[in-house]
Amino acid sequence: MRYELYYWNGIQGRGEFVRLALEEAAADYVDVCRNEGGEDAMMTLLDSDAVTRPPFAPPFLKAGRQLIGQTANILLFLGPRHGLAPDDEAGRLWTHSLQLTIADLVSEVHDSHHPLASSMYYEEQRREAKKRAANLVRERLPKFLGYFERVLARSARTPRFLVGRALTYVDLSMFQVVAGLRYAYPNAMAGLEKRCPRLVDLHEHVRLRPRIAAYLASARRLPFNEQGIFRHYRALDA
Amino acid sequence: MRYELYYWNGIQGRGEFVRLALEEAAADYVDVCRNEGGEDAMMTLLDSDAVTRPPFAPPFLKAGRQLIGQTANILLFLGPRHGLAPDDEAGRLWTHSLQLTIADLVSEVHDSHHPLASSMYYEEQRREAKKRAANLVRERLPKFLGYFERVLARSARTPRFLVGRALTYVDLSMFQVVAGLRYAYPNAMAGLEKRCPRLVDLHEHVRLRPRIAAYLASARRLPFNEQGIFRHYRALDA
Repeated sequence: MRYELYYWNGIQGRGEFVRLALEEAAADYVDVCRNEGGEDAMMTLLDSDAVTRPPFAPPFLKAGRQLIGQTANILLFLGPRHGLAPDDEAGRLWTHSLQLTIADLVSEVHDSHHPLASSMYYEEQRREAKKRAANLVRERLPKFLGYFERVLARSARTPRFLVGRALTYVDLSMFQVVAGLRYAYPNAMAGLEKRCPRLVDLHEHVRLRPRIAAYLASARRLPFNEQGIFRHYRALDA
Repeated sequence: MRYELYYWNGIQGRGEFVRLALEEAAADYVDVCRNEGGEDAMMTLLDSDAVTRPPFAPPFLKAGRQLIGQTANILLFLGPRHGLAPDDEAGRLWTHSLQLTIADLVSEVHDSHHPLASSMYYEEQRREAKKRAANLVRERLPKFLGYFERVLARSARTPRFLVGRALTYVDLSMFQVVAGLRYAYPNAMAGLEKRCPRLVDLHEHVRLRPRIAAYLASARRLPFNEQGIFRHYRALDA
């Protein structure tokens, strides 16, 4: 079965967490909106009255006749099918809770450049963004990254994964968080990374995995930019 | 097995979504932090190095030896065990995606009074809160509530549930969202509710279910207040 991934063209955004899982799984998929007419098809699925179970927003995945919305939920679906989640229910719930914590972090990173409204331009909320970004860097990132570092510290093996002995989708997402934060907040991250060496190692391990390395070197991997979630604005990264 | 629910004392907050499911299920549970020493026990579970799989934040649920974090994830666990989720995997993923969309809405409601930082007082970010709340009321609530109304419209039966023919945990959460928004934004909701009659009906149906009605009338149901997620500030509800 060929999966269809629906996500805004031109940005990594939340779609990237799904792409990384599909790539590591060597799954057969098409990134619909990168093709002519793709965004129209996406809007139809979002708005059509004929869709029984419409997703709220991109990204969503079409798997046969099933439409699956919400990033973490898509990974919950893909994980067990592609060897990217533990076999037991307790392990899957634990993995999923980590993914949901990453989702919370990602939302906070988004709001650091859009604290007032997603529908306004960054330039219209720059002053507020400066305050929120300062709080993100000073309080929230240390709390989130410290948490994941602590989770990694409980793993005895090298390479250390967030869950058990094998790579799961949440490791791939963690790679993306570190990569995105390095892009958006290079100054802040230079300091923060000293306190989370295991996260740095995990990022490096994922980056070098053959399928991920091939993906990152391909045209399928879009560059970070100032339309996505991880945006670099010098004013926010003092 | 007696569940242990860990959540901050004194507020409904995110814990309330779990409480409603436990109450409807007539599950055996203890709301740990409402007892003497409960918050200390909670902090120990959050911070202790002896906990192999520590949750990031409250609420979390202790089920036997398992600790389950993240509100939506707790409901994902409870749903199938207590007849509050569909039997098939596709139905469960659909239910969960709706719950995650509610989680997104809840975060946006929280940020409407705390757009700059959770750690600052509302009074320190009142001006920014006014802007964010205006956007919530004008754009975001119509989008979210319109979406759930559309989902309900696809259900042919009366009473209409969000998923299939039977009540699921996401209906209970939707009740809480409507109740919370009525408390926090009564003026805005007076207008918005005209466009979502099915959500109003769902709220009423859930409110009158015997176990929920008994819960709401009991001392176990805390009142809404200005320490929780749904806060009423007159300045934000023009």
